[in-house]
Amino acid sequence: MPADVEPTRFVAGAAPLAGLRVLEISSFVAAPLGGMTLAQLGADVIRVDPIGGAADRYRWPRTVDGASLYWAGLNKSKRSITVDFRNRDGRQIIEDLLASFPSRSAVILTNAVGRDWLSYDVLRQHAVDLIHVQIEGRSDGRPAVDYTVNAEVGFPLVTGPAGMADPVNHVLPAWDIACGLYAALGVSAAARRRERTGEGDSLRVALADVALAMAGNLGFLAEAQLNNVERQRIGNYLYGGFARDFLCADGGRVMVVALSSRHWQDILRLTGMERAIAALEKELAVDFSLEDDRFEYREALAGLFQRWFGSHTTAAVAEALAATSLVWAPYRTFAGAVAHLQTPAGANPIVTEIDQPGVGPYLAPGSPLTFQSLRAITEPAPLLGEHTDQVLATELGLDVDQISRLHASGAVATGQTV
Amino acid sequence: MPADVEPTRFVAGAAPLAGLRVLEISSFVAAPLGGMTLAQLGADVIRVDPIGGAADRYRWPRTVDGASLYWAGLNKSKRSITVDFRNRDGRQIIEDLLASFPSRSAVILTNAVGRDWLSYDVLRQHAVDLIHVQIEGRSDGRPAVDYTVNAEVGFPLVTGPAGMADPVNHVLPAWDIACGLYAALGVSAAARRRERTGEGDSLRVALADVALAMAGNLGFLAEAQLNNVERQRIGNYLYGGFARDFLCADGGRVMVVALSSRHWQDILRLTGMERAIAALEKELAVDFSLEDDRFEYREALAGLFQRWFGSHTTAAVAEALAATSLVWAPYRTFAGAVAHLQTPAGANPIVTEIDQPGVGPYLAPGSPLTFQSLRAITEPAPLLGEHTDQVLATELGLDVDQISRLHASGAVATGQTV
Repeated sequence: MPADVEPTRFVAGAAPLAGLRVLEISSFVAAPLGGMTLAQLGADVIRVDPIGGAADRYRWPRTVDGASLYWAGLNKSKRSITVDFRNRDGRQIIEDLLASFPSRSAVILTNAVGRDWLSYDVLRQHAVDLIHVQIEGRSDGRPAVDYTVNAEVGFPLVTGPAGMADPVNHVLPAWDIACGLYAALGVSAAARRRERTGEGDSLRVALADVALAMAGNLGFLAEAQLNNVERQRIGNYLYGGFARDFLCADGGRVMVVALSSRHWQDILRLTGMERAIAALEKELAVDFSLEDDRFEYREALAGLFQRWFGSHTTAAVAEALAATSLVWAPYRTFAGAVAHLQTPAGANPIVTEIDQPGVGPYLAPGSPLTFQSLRAITEPAPLLGEHTDQVLATELGLDVDQISRLHASGAVATGQTV
Repeated sequence: MPADVEPTRFVAGAAPLAGLRVLEISSFVAAPLGGMTLAQLGADVIRVDPIGGAADRYRWPRTVDGASLYWAGLNKSKRSITVDFRNRDGRQIIEDLLASFPSRSAVILTNAVGRDWLSYDVLRQHAVDLIHVQIEGRSDGRPAVDYTVNAEVGFPLVTGPAGMADPVNHVLPAWDIACGLYAALGVSAAARRRERTGEGDSLRVALADVALAMAGNLGFLAEAQLNNVERQRIGNYLYGGFARDFLCADGGRVMVVALSSRHWQDILRLTGMERAIAALEKELAVDFSLEDDRFEYREALAGLFQRWFGSHTTAAVAEALAATSLVWAPYRTFAGAVAHLQTPAGANPIVTEIDQPGVGPYLAPGSPLTFQSLRAITEPAPLLGEHTDQVLATELGLDVDQISRLHASGAVATGQTV
């Protein structure tokens, strides 16, 4: 990359993925998150969109002016170019960019399916050591989205209060997040191998497989297979231990988790229930120092503890909990979380104010993964197509006339219409 | 690693993380998942536990015989040794293992906090190019768990049916999953840098920061900051588009997502509502080809569509949906997901039967991330301490007498007591 467009977001040269050149042809969550994660580790990421933008261009939430905060959030620290994928000259730009990249640098990250010209076999002709990552809905090529893979793997039927009959979907697109992080992980691992062997690789990850793998890793599938039981809804309790939300006198809520013996002693003391619960243990012949027994009697125990929480304000509860070993947090709304960030107790070094083109200044997070070698600065997302001419000039060495001809033929566009 | 313990789970030499040597001192979800993810990419991962096991040793779900399916699920493809961390000779084994590792191979992955002897500054004395990953609850060192970071960032107050007042926690530990994947990503990226520069690195990732970063990346925090609105609960609808669960005549449920114009036309045709909805559009002066209008009238639209779903069995609904472009899935329980895996339509190449010591044979997933260069075989989790003597002999070259003395002094143990 020429010196005049050198990213300044890292201490020079120290970033773990410095030198990687990523072309991202993407939409929605997983692939853009994967690309942004690579950018946050020092890769130079160019998001390549169709002219006018991809399907996530105006995704909610949006500002009153119509700018997508979703798009802005998932495309920070990238450059943006727009080309006509149906135009041979447009597709040629992707091939020429790959061919221009130094050895051991080229990466393609995409969730576009069914496009031969974007395949590993075609594109490696332009960068022999290409690392190519294909994100898919299902490994057989059929589409799937976060909501559908979540439905079919089992979580919505165990989420929510005990006794509820309806499925409760996640609001957090947890599978998209995991899928995007797997994609970034795959690039990093393949790039480490490429440093040693000089070889590229073709990677695939399917959203449905991510959900299936995690449901298996966490024992949900094994329990169903081996114990022949269906996991039941248990509301906000912790399976096999003791944790629950509690309602305070002023309507606030806190989540309290008692994992260890010390935690357990602390919640007994805090709520003044030591003797009452000792009496219960004696009469019921149970031992609440054991997590199994705590889980079995969770409703009774939580009911006793609730009496203390319900007679104290949230502030008093917070102060008292902070003096114990218990793991706890207040429930906050998103606005409450933002307000907390702006207090001395809530200030977080990964969050900085950025001036997002088309949006204005706001607090935005950088990567939660920090490196001793790396001081990362969070950069705003580009405007759609903001870097088209810059990339054509600096990466491909095109002159003004050549760039103009590409515009005139409709192969590329610059800037956004909204 | 001597040839006799060479992992056989990859085509020789081709794995992207082949040659990495990881010591994992961990518990619960994020760190064990991070280590397992590295093992699935070809790293040699040794989980080092205190004698008798860490706090996750008996975590639910468990078999009727008391084996933890949670532990088995999160420790596949690793070796296990147990040492007394309070014993100088026990801690020395970790240092000696680090010192025995070839250059550009050493990794420490841990979520143990407040232990100086496990810190980067201490351990790098034994492996100068060490990559050290510290997973924490909060970046200031205070504890946090998935349930508490989820409560404080905002998701439980927008999850569940509209009109509900209580928080709805995730059952899926989504933040632990993302945190574990960030840890594996950090190791891979730092290992790529180490290949280029010879330098190690100290990495940190805090569970609370992962949640904050993702709430920001997805626009939840920006929306609260800039639009001055609180996101409301919208049940199983899709924010800013059209998707919902539908109840079939026989009580089954399906999740249906209509993102594109083609999807929208297909759901109108499927449910026979083309003319009724065209009439609505005309009278209300709205345009349901626009996602915004579909979202605004989501309840009315879903109510009209529900009439068709409610008059067809789940099987008939599935057959009809499969003939459209719509993205959809049936809701399944975990047992239903397992049963589906055992059908021809549900068979998945990432899932294989493994024979888990202490548990028996069951279907377990491997990595959802696949590499052209890599044929990964899913190996079961070790028994706790299964490899203590093997590691002491093959990695440190200790003889039988030396190993016996370590056992006699209580510095190490072999095998599990339950």
